[in-house]
Amino acid sequence: MRIGVLGTGAAGRALAARFAEVGHDVALGTREVDATRAKEEAWYDGHPEVRLATQAEAAAHGEIVVNVCSGAGTLAALANAGASNLAGKVLVDVSNPLDFSQGFPPTLFVKDTDSLAERVQREFPETRVVKALNMVANEVMTHPLDLAGGDHTLLISGNDEQAKSVASGLLRELGWADIFDLGDLSNARGQEMWMALWTRLYRKIGHVNFNIKLVR
Amino acid sequence: MRIGVLGTGAAGRALAARFAEVGHDVALGTREVDATRAKEEAWYDGHPEVRLATQAEAAAHGEIVVNVCSGAGTLAALANAGASNLAGKVLVDVSNPLDFSQGFPPTLFVKDTDSLAERVQREFPETRVVKALNMVANEVMTHPLDLAGGDHTLLISGNDEQAKSVASGLLRELGWADIFDLGDLSNARGQEMWMALWTRLYRKIGHVNFNIKLVR
Repeated sequence: MRIGVLGTGAAGRALAARFAEVGHDVALGTREVDATRAKEEAWYDGHPEVRLATQAEAAAHGEIVVNVCSGAGTLAALANAGASNLAGKVLVDVSNPLDFSQGFPPTLFVKDTDSLAERVQREFPETRVVKALNMVANEVMTHPLDLAGGDHTLLISGNDEQAKSVASGLLRELGWADIFDLGDLSNARGQEMWMALWTRLYRKIGHVNFNIKLVR
Repeated sequence: MRIGVLGTGAAGRALAARFAEVGHDVALGTREVDATRAKEEAWYDGHPEVRLATQAEAAAHGEIVVNVCSGAGTLAALANAGASNLAGKVLVDVSNPLDFSQGFPPTLFVKDTDSLAERVQREFPETRVVKALNMVANEVMTHPLDLAGGDHTLLISGNDEQAKSVASGLLRELGWADIFDLGDLSNARGQEMWMALWTRLYRKIGHVNFNIKLVR
């Protein structure tokens, strides 16, 4: 499948490389291709399977688009990617509305009565937004089987059943086995508010390779 | 040990009965003893080991006090219990700042930059507040071993190390094995914000007998 990944931070690059590893044709979108490559030249040299492109090119390339931009940068990045390049497509939204202006742990700039995922959905009504992967860090996202043999849970939500089915299929390719569908996209409020615990657990555990298992 | 439980809803009664069952001397505090007994007469007749008392009596009775009042009713109930009856004591705060005014799922009337537990701590500075048990429902609280043999996690927080140690000892008597200390009481923000997911998981799972296991 053709996948466009938006966001060239560590998480975006890790996902892009992993999608390529499991056989997909991946374009990784950034605002400035040359500057992004120059900043992490060794990484891009080591991952020729990940084609660096503009955000619009990556969105146009993808049958599925995955947003791994910062929360604060998400709406601008998607606008830059272009509504027409995103129309009709599954957009897996991995972002979190983190506000680090008061230090760590961050607060959330949208929460409780709204979510960043819903903002994205309102701004791009023809795109089929699925919230997923925002509750875990890079290594767990990309290699869930490396944590407790995969015995932990991924929560997803979204308004479009078929989009969630497509996204879940892609996530299973990464090794995710226990994918729990919360329902419509308003449930992303809960997924994003998890960050209030995630950041505190991270501080206490001392590393990011953890997740929760839903025991029911 | 002498334990005072505040709050005569289903969770308060379940905890009071369970503390008595494991050998403690329990007083259950309510605003109006006769009215509370009349409303649930069969339950109180069936649990003579739980002594119904005023909130002040229950707080005075307890070496440990456990607040299982609604979030909205917590500060008034504790004021009624009396600061002098709570001074120096471990107060296990099980409450959640749920606002049901807009229906289900509820929103939170304090969050992100503050928590209900911290409000309680500020209002009762001589009391040693420990946030615990707010992330699970009655049956899981009182009988954690009945869910997956107890293989799931309880998060606690609080400013006083010794208070957390005392509270953890009591929780272990109920069957809790994996008790994870988040740190100081500001971490209660994360514990209370979990409700945004708990309520949505409950809606989807269809029952309240679930919890998370912290996989790390």
